[in-house]
Amino acid sequence: MGLLKELDQRSPEELGRELYDFAAKLFPICRSITGDGIRQTLTSIGTRLALRTVDVPTGTPVFDWIVPKEWNIRDAYIKKPGGKRVVDFKRCNLHVVSYSTPIHATMPFTELKRHLFTLPGNPDYIPYRTSYYREDWGFCLSHNQMMALEDCDYEVHIDSTLEDGRLTYGEYYLPGCSAEEILISCHVCHPSLANDNLSGLAVATALAQFLSGRELRYSCRFLFIPGTIGAITWLAQNRDTAGRVRNGLVLTCIGDAGGFHYKKSRRGNAEIDRAAAHVLHHHHEAGEILEFSPYGYDERQYCSPGFDLPVGCLMRSVWGTFPEYHTSADNLDFIQPLRLAESLRVCTAIFDVLENNRRYCNQNPYCEPQLGRRNLYQSTGGGEIPARLWVLNLSDGKHTLLDIAERSGIPFPAICDAADLLCQNGLLSILPDGSGLNNRPNVTSGK
Amino acid sequence: MGLLKELDQRSPEELGRELYDFAAKLFPICRSITGDGIRQTLTSIGTRLALRTVDVPTGTPVFDWIVPKEWNIRDAYIKKPGGKRVVDFKRCNLHVVSYSTPIHATMPFTELKRHLFTLPGNPDYIPYRTSYYREDWGFCLSHNQMMALEDCDYEVHIDSTLEDGRLTYGEYYLPGCSAEEILISCHVCHPSLANDNLSGLAVATALAQFLSGRELRYSCRFLFIPGTIGAITWLAQNRDTAGRVRNGLVLTCIGDAGGFHYKKSRRGNAEIDRAAAHVLHHHHEAGEILEFSPYGYDERQYCSPGFDLPVGCLMRSVWGTFPEYHTSADNLDFIQPLRLAESLRVCTAIFDVLENNRRYCNQNPYCEPQLGRRNLYQSTGGGEIPARLWVLNLSDGKHTLLDIAERSGIPFPAICDAADLLCQNGLLSILPDGSGLNNRPNVTSGK
Amino acid sequence: MGLLKELDQRSPEELGRELYDFAAKLFPICRSITGDGIRQTLTSIGTRLALRTVDVPTGTPVFDWIVPKEWNIRDAYIKKPGGKRVVDFKRCNLHVVSYSTPIHATMPFTELKRHLFTLPGNPDYIPYRTSYYREDWGFCLSHNQMMALEDCDYEVHIDSTLEDGRLTYGEYYLPGCSAEEILISCHVCHPSLANDNLSGLAVATALAQFLSGRELRYSCRFLFIPGTIGAITWLAQNRDTAGRVRNGLVLTCIGDAGGFHYKKSRRGNAEIDRAAAHVLHHHHEAGEILEFSPYGYDERQYCSPGFDLPVGCLMRSVWGTFPEYHTSADNLDFIQPLRLAESLRVCTAIFDVLENNRRYCNQNPYCEPQLGRRNLYQSTGGGEIPARLWVLNLSDGKHTLLDIAERSGIPFPAICDAADLLCQNGLLSILPDGSGLNNRPNVTSGK
Repeated sequence: MGLLKELDQRSPEELGRELYDFAAKLFPICRSITGDGIRQTLTSIGTRLALRTVDVPTGTPVFDWIVPKEWNIRDAYIKKPGGKRVVDFKRCNLHVVSYSTPIHATMPFTELKRHLFTLPGNPDYIPYRTSYYREDWGFCLSHNQMMALEDCDYEVHIDSTLEDGRLTYGEYYLPGCSAEEILISCHVCHPSLANDNLSGLAVATALAQFLSGRELRYSCRFLFIPGTIGAITWLAQNRDTAGRVRNGLVLTCIGDAGGFHYKKSRRGNAEIDRAAAHVLHHHHEAGEILEFSPYGYDERQYCSPGFDLPVGCLMRSVWGTFPEYHTSADNLDFIQPLRLAESLRVCTAIFDVLENNRRYCNQNPYCEPQLGRRNLYQSTGGGEIPARLWVLNLSDGKHTLLDIAERSGIPFPAICDAADLLCQNGLLSILPDGSGLNNRPNVTSGK
Repeated sequence: MGLLKELDQRSPEELGRELYDFAAKLFPICRSITGDGIRQTLTSIGTRLALRTVDVPTGTPVFDWIVPKEWNIRDAYIKKPGGKRVVDFKRCNLHVVSYSTPIHATMPFTELKRHLFTLPGNPDYIPYRTSYYREDWGFCLSHNQMMALEDCDYEVHIDSTLEDGRLTYGEYYLPGCSAEEILISCHVCHPSLANDNLSGLAVATALAQFLSGRELRYSCRFLFIPGTIGAITWLAQNRDTAGRVRNGLVLTCIGDAGGFHYKKSRRGNAEIDRAAAHVLHHHHEAGEILEFSPYGYDERQYCSPGFDLPVGCLMRSVWGTFPEYHTSADNLDFIQPLRLAESLRVCTAIFDVLENNRRYCNQNPYCEPQLGRRNLYQSTGGGEIPARLWVLNLSDGKHTLLDIAERSGIPFPAICDAADLLCQNGLLSILPDGSGLNNRPNVTSGK
Repeated sequence: MGLLKELDQRSPEELGRELYDFAAKLFPICRSITGDGIRQTLTSIGTRLALRTVDVPTGTPVFDWIVPKEWNIRDAYIKKPGGKRVVDFKRCNLHVVSYSTPIHATMPFTELKRHLFTLPGNPDYIPYRTSYYREDWGFCLSHNQMMALEDCDYEVHIDSTLEDGRLTYGEYYLPGCSAEEILISCHVCHPSLANDNLSGLAVATALAQFLSGRELRYSCRFLFIPGTIGAITWLAQNRDTAGRVRNGLVLTCIGDAGGFHYKKSRRGNAEIDRAAAHVLHHHHEAGEILEFSPYGYDERQYCSPGFDLPVGCLMRSVWGTFPEYHTSADNLDFIQPLRLAESLRVCTAIFDVLENNRRYCNQNPYCEPQLGRRNLYQSTGGGEIPARLWVLNLSDGKHTLLDIAERSGIPFPAICDAADLLCQNGLLSILPDGSGLNNRPNVTSGK
């Protein structure tokens, strides 16, 4: 249980500030599913982690998909007569529909209007839109902004390129004692949107840094990938590796003020599902468990039937349920340092469960051992004795520590501490991974 | 999903009127578990269906029972001095206890009284009583009617016969692609009682007509039988056929204004139980699921432990819970055309589930297929896209469409439409019946 | 179902009075986990039952424990200057910490105070304390009593011995048709505490008397043992016997006015768990079912992982939850004759379930048998007919009568009566113990 205890030695304010500052640094970059923006972002992460970046050429078939052309943009605007920019990409990169084809023309408002997107219900917000797989161009602007436009001719310019190139993603691998892996995946394809998903990216980077250099039970793999096509590309090129994923988490929208939500994997009762539910159940903030559904983030791909990987999704506010979602209001005011820090803390607590969820064997299974003469029947305040009795009672080789935590209602850290102490006193022995019953989840290899 | 869509092309008012008129036509006939009344009724059904009628002689042993004597009645009355009929079978056939032995005598009121049955709690209703297995005679009348009788001598006449003869039932068989059957059973033994069970009889007849001439997956068998002894007789003489029943429904009391009730089969989780629960769950009227119990209608026999057939019972108001039950108030005012039509609709919806509840195999199980380039990622208003994603995600050969509908919370028709569309686009293939896992329910052969 | 019916022929007032009087007779004795007090108590029980007492010498290893020295006490007091006893063992044996080492000394109040124990929250109650496994001495007194003590020198005397000797327990065995056993265990180690556990001891003794001389299906074993060390000693010396325990109950705190509580065995769904839950569910008093936990009474030892015996614990008020617990207020005013009688009644009802919980085989499994011609389709008022139909429907060799009672919601006695009557009529045959499916619980032998 070293991870959470160690993290808790750091000040949440300081930790939160670091996470927030990193998100703020990446905020201005115009990312999409391909292009320089994503590479700039990965370079920035690379200053913190020994990140491996992978380039996949346009046209590469990946399962039912094909890696698309690479998109880059330098400038874009709508100018009114007289040359004033009424919509300006340089002020906000959400103004251009992502993957817009280049255009430079003058056209009447009635024609231009068909390429404008607004949110009448939230008239101050600029929406975020993409057109990855249908070649088109467009501008997003606030509804109020559009209502103020006069009926005249406008100069429209999008200085973009859509050409053969590469799809780029980043991967960071931490070897552990076991070849089985914990996968952390976050999408890095959104432009200036803070919660979705600079929050996930900042937390994943910090978690990877925090775990680096430690002796870990499981190997860990962190993916910084464009949403959907990135996950599909990675899975297509790493089918063997996918078969080693024992547990996984998609991290997204974890910087806002909302309570935690964990969406279960397709399996519904995988170790990660139970670990996340346990941690959120005992967390002081409201936490909610959602059933799996085949829409959302990249868990869609990891949980497709051919893979069926035990990968869930950790969020605070759920995508699509808050008005700031996919708008200019998902900005740096929408995320908070302490929320980011707490999200890192919850991820660490889940890792602690996964890393320590072992089975033990009571060395005195017939009746209780005499705890008193070992000075184990005294408590230093908390509920140590019930935790010890539960661990002894259920350490029959069939129950993991998480089983015991669930059945007893005692938080995992207390159960884990009890197991450690009982081991030190010779009352418990640890069962090696892979021995006994029900140890390994049913890992689908995806082959 | 053709059945329900096709039925919905007909006007509910017209459909309801046809159902109601048929019930009204059959209402005056004096039916019992044997005799001419039941044969008249089957003849009437026979004008609509190619019904096979089966005669079983009195004295035939059927499991623990023996086919009883045949009962017929021509007239019955109680006359007061002066010859006025104070109770007259010709006005209402409920006035005579069913299976009353013949009598013609004059007796004082005190003696007569021991043969009179009333409902003091509902003093205007004539009760419905039978004495099938104990030879006796009696009259039923309203409590008010009895209270008005003077203390004098009465002429009592029941012009009935109870003699060796036959038990008659009707059977209609529709062959389908599979020898496995869906059984629809309704009792036809009650005299002038509308909801119990002219409602079931009218709906079953219309359902059989509606299904006739179609290419069906399962064979269908409709039984129009006297309650209890009829079901026992049929089972005794058709043990092999019983073993082919894959799903079944007893239809009764489905014409009144009450909400739907489905009583589960003894198995509790048979396909019919899940199909009926799913349809009622998504139905706009209140629907309730009842656990199995070994009392009620002929499901008692189908679900006896030696057969344990997957047969449930569909009702609106539950027998014994409404004051009109088994009284003269269960008349043509108690059932309504639109209620009958809606009951036929619910039966059809259940059939649609059973007929279409197949397993499919996702042809692109690794990651999602690219729906966009197939124009499948656009919605025409409803929740088509979630339905498609759910079907793709769970079509791993293990889940039926009903499994998918249950897990997703999406109504079966939408799931079925999604599967059809995905098949047309080559994204899904249908798995043949009998392949793979969990396809066939555990059919007890009853041998 | 003879047991409960027979018990109910006795007046509850008379029965309660006998139980209470026996508890009252034993109340003054100073019991501990060893010593003369326990032997006196067993001698008293021995006047009612042919009890076998077993002596185990000090120093005997029993699993992880060692049988401790024997403790006896003759007198103890605290005298103030002038010789007046301000604390006097002869007035209440709770005044001395159990297992106090001998002392005779004069000491100032400040020194004495370190050996005094009170309950400031309940200032009139004398607490009950022990120091079995750490040699020490002490006095317990009410907080008000201590506050009244002046700051002077006191003569302190505990005339006790702590020497090699024996641990003594009592065992009563009733042979039944089967070698499988029902175990009743109660701790007899507490001094003048009425509910905890003279109540259990009185009820267990009366139950053993009541069962004596009957022909029983299962053998019964009653243990009157010192808590913890007694159960451990018995298990250590009777491992083979432990393997024959099919069901068991720890009886404690069953004389007070609280509602019943049944704490499940570690298995959670053992026959005893289901039988006790069923009886309490249909009992007129409020009854509550508690999940297993590895703290409480001797079920801790019986349910240790090496044994995992199906032993639960029946209580009224739960230990630790009522203010009188382990204080001088748990006296003869805290228990009531009628409560003791009702507790005996509930134990008897549970025994009736265990003794009669058999599987039967419907001799006419195809359709219902004709109950009418056997005069079994008439009711004498209660719900006899549903009970008969349920028993017939589920007597397929797979369901026990308790399964049927649970599924039907009908109390076990009515189900059992129905089975008896159906057997008498040749409609049901009893399946011998050990035949068919799921008959024997998974008995862990503890070897």
